Amino acid sequence: MDNFRRPQRVKENNEFVFGIRAVIEAIKAGRDIETIYLQRGLSGGLFLELKTLLTGTLIPLNSVPIEKLNRMTQKNHQGVIAVISPITYQNIEDIIPSVFEKGEVPLILVLDSVTDVRNMGAIARTAACVGVHAIVVPLKNAAQINADAIKTSAGALFSIPICRHSNLHKTCLFLQESGLQIVACTEKTNDFIYAPDYTMPTAIVMGSEDEGISNELLRVADHLAKIPMAGKIESLNVSVAAGVILYEAVRQRTV
Amino acid sequence: MDNFRRPQRVKENNEFVFGIRAVIEAIKAGRDIETIYLQRGLSGGLFLELKTLLTGTLIPLNSVPIEKLNRMTQKNHQGVIAVISPITYQNIEDIIPSVFEKGEVPLILVLDSVTDVRNMGAIARTAACVGVHAIVVPLKNAAQINADAIKTSAGALFSIPICRHSNLHKTCLFLQESGLQIVACTEKTNDFIYAPDYTMPTAIVMGSEDEGISNELLRVADHLAKIPMAGKIESLNVSVAAGVILYEAVRQRTV
Repeated sequence: MDNFRRPQRVKENNEFVFGIRAVIEAIKAGRDIETIYLQRGLSGGLFLELKTLLTGTLIPLNSVPIEKLNRMTQKNHQGVIAVISPITYQNIEDIIPSVFEKGEVPLILVLDSVTDVRNMGAIARTAACVGVHAIVVPLKNAAQINADAIKTSAGALFSIPICRHSNLHKTCLFLQESGLQIVACTEKTNDFIYAPDYTMPTAIVMGSEDEGISNELLRVADHLAKIPMAGKIESLNVSVAAGVILYEAVRQRTV
Repeated sequence: MDNFRRPQRVKENNEFVFGIRAVIEAIKAGRDIETIYLQRGLSGGLFLELKTLLTGTLIPLNSVPIEKLNRMTQKNHQGVIAVISPITYQNIEDIIPSVFEKGEVPLILVLDSVTDVRNMGAIARTAACVGVHAIVVPLKNAAQINADAIKTSAGALFSIPICRHSNLHKTCLFLQESGLQIVACTEKTNDFIYAPDYTMPTAIVMGSEDEGISNELLRVADHLAKIPMAGKIESLNVSVAAGVILYEAVRQRTV
């Protein structure tokens, strides 16, 4: 698996900015940037300015061969293409207090390594139906929010806050400090998803079908919870698995 | 919406049989046929023989313009193409007694108008994880079981029995006579999916996202059951909705 998002052919001119100076200005202007593709081995003053500018931001920077950039645009990209995001990423640090202030019980979904854009979209659609307060994704190893993801989400990616974080482990620690329990949905346990009490403030962590949840996140979790399986070889699609555990939370909060 | 399955370009020669005599022989030989496309307005002795042969079988016959057949193959199809099914359809009348004989409590899934092949595949994958005993689909207005459906099912379409029936209303009556309750998953009720007792022999009916479950099936159902929604405009993808209600049955049978 690539450790960066796969560059996709960008169809509309207004979906990306190319050229190192233009990209620097886009960042300074606060444009919502999904990801930046940088020609491998690029150096020089403007490149350093870009790197400095990105420090502390949550914009993923991917070094790629020049051929990938050439496939994305035939225009003079000067080794840098910034893909503009269709959504505005939000901060989980802002969202949690506001949920408590509204008198609601936080329900947060953390997606570790869910890189498939359609699964991302499908999960967002379900999360909107459930009333999830935010979805947290990592900076790297996340699905790019693109037209396919938006379409599969039936527009839910525009309504549900998506938060991007460089370190999901730290995010989970922050959530715990804020009073949330972490429930990791994994087959590496004998406890079923029915055991935790989801009427408490809760963050549910889902991993990709291939890689599952990282050991670091499994260790920090308060509960490991598995979905029962009739067969031994079968596994659920991650978007269905997310629906099943999220609706267990809904059931406990409804009945 | 077309009332017949959309013909798809068949890539492999062994996936279909063309020519009216060849199709007749394929039916007589008991080949598993997914669907037959017939040129609109075709008549004559062999055509009548084909129609007679199909009477009482569960092979859908679709009259289409000759252009559709020409798009499916450039060979001399003589107005008839039979698409060979990758699976062998089974009879629900045989399955129910065998489930009872094994001492298991039947859990059947009935899909009304789920025409999207990927949703069909995704639902089969989930059904296999849940241990559903069979999926019942209608003869018309069902998803074609093709390579895409198989792939999305992660192969589950080969392991879970699929039953095709010309009249789902009659199928539901048969299921009720066999001691199964019918639970229709629909938003047209105030009762949640948590109300029915799924530890009883149960058939769950799902409808398509567009059309829902037909009124005829809603009337025959013992319980109408809706999935709670946080928002008013949101709706779940049908494969996620199937996962949510099937796993409510699993929860009741597990906990």
